[in-house]
Amino acid sequence: MSRWTFYTAPGTCALATHIALQEAGAEFDVVKLDFGAGQQQSPEFLRVNPKGRVPALATEHGVLTETPALLAYVAQRFPAAGLAPLDDPFAFARLQELNSYLASTAHVAHAHKRRGARWADDPAAHEAMRAKVPETMTAVAAYLESQIAGPWALGDRFSVADAYLYTIGSWLEGDGVDLARFPALTAYLARVAARPAVQRALAQAKAE
Amino acid sequence: MSRWTFYTAPGTCALATHIALQEAGAEFDVVKLDFGAGQQQSPEFLRVNPKGRVPALATEHGVLTETPALLAYVAQRFPAAGLAPLDDPFAFARLQELNSYLASTAHVAHAHKRRGARWADDPAAHEAMRAKVPETMTAVAAYLESQIAGPWALGDRFSVADAYLYTIGSWLEGDGVDLARFPALTAYLARVAARPAVQRALAQAKAE
Repeated sequence: MSRWTFYTAPGTCALATHIALQEAGAEFDVVKLDFGAGQQQSPEFLRVNPKGRVPALATEHGVLTETPALLAYVAQRFPAAGLAPLDDPFAFARLQELNSYLASTAHVAHAHKRRGARWADDPAAHEAMRAKVPETMTAVAAYLESQIAGPWALGDRFSVADAYLYTIGSWLEGDGVDLARFPALTAYLARVAARPAVQRALAQAKAE
Repeated sequence: MSRWTFYTAPGTCALATHIALQEAGAEFDVVKLDFGAGQQQSPEFLRVNPKGRVPALATEHGVLTETPALLAYVAQRFPAAGLAPLDDPFAFARLQELNSYLASTAHVAHAHKRRGARWADDPAAHEAMRAKVPETMTAVAAYLESQIAGPWALGDRFSVADAYLYTIGSWLEGDGVDLARFPALTAYLARVAARPAVQRALAQAKAE
């Protein structure tokens, strides 16, 4: 396997894939984009990912994007790491169900805080979106609180879904969610944060 | 395998999973919810899917939700139907990358036409969201136009990603997209629509 290149930016959902790569023991170079400087829209990066977003992973087969796709791919490419129930279609579907909820409901709700311009041009509409984020992300937190099946999201085994749930979970307080209402989720987030691979990913991803 | 029950509603993204089930040759009963009457929020359905959304698939192992998870699951449970490149992790990731884009970007853009109340309380904000849908869905159409690799989305073989791309593609005209600008996508949508399994799913799903 040729060495991969992982494109990320601090504070983004790319952290989920970064954690998965660290948990897998993958070898990869990290390219950090400065979103403040608009580097995700640079001609150079648009050649890597025409969507102008992170995460993006340059592999020996080509560039892959979209967190749920990347998480399943990392788990499949490093089966010995045990990051997904690859031999049980229903358990794998449960993992994918959670990942898909995190991408399409949770991350989307969060994005209405700062990315309202994706969906409306009127600054008053952006403000109305921002105002609802504490409510929508509290609903996300309540759902996640109900979903944690054991020490890890799916039960006894850490999986790539934990990398993603932790990433989105780390946004909740900044989005106005009162975490004291969600003790299982709070304890869970601390458990994930304590993993060495998570600490390595956080250290590699942080802004300089 | 015990007989499955598939929960759907006319005009929703559940059509994608419905097509996949028909293409797979699965045996399943169909329960159609009347969204106009709010049946997705009935106590009876919330016991099936607490998220109050379709699609939901009741299997012998439990209920599954979220289109990308369901599509991969149907493909894995019916490998003989050849609906996903199950033995090639990179090709499978490409399929999942497209499915994830359809769920998190394309469907979300579309939802801002009628579901703005998910993300803001102000009716003026809903109107501002609705006004931008032709622009965001035209960007979706342009991306999809660039992604169709052959007769089918991933190339030579029909896959569950085609079921999803077709479903979202069928919304474009109603969302104000000028399909004449996207000839490859237009021809592709007609190709998918001509498949007998797609016609069976459409007939089963339509409002009475």
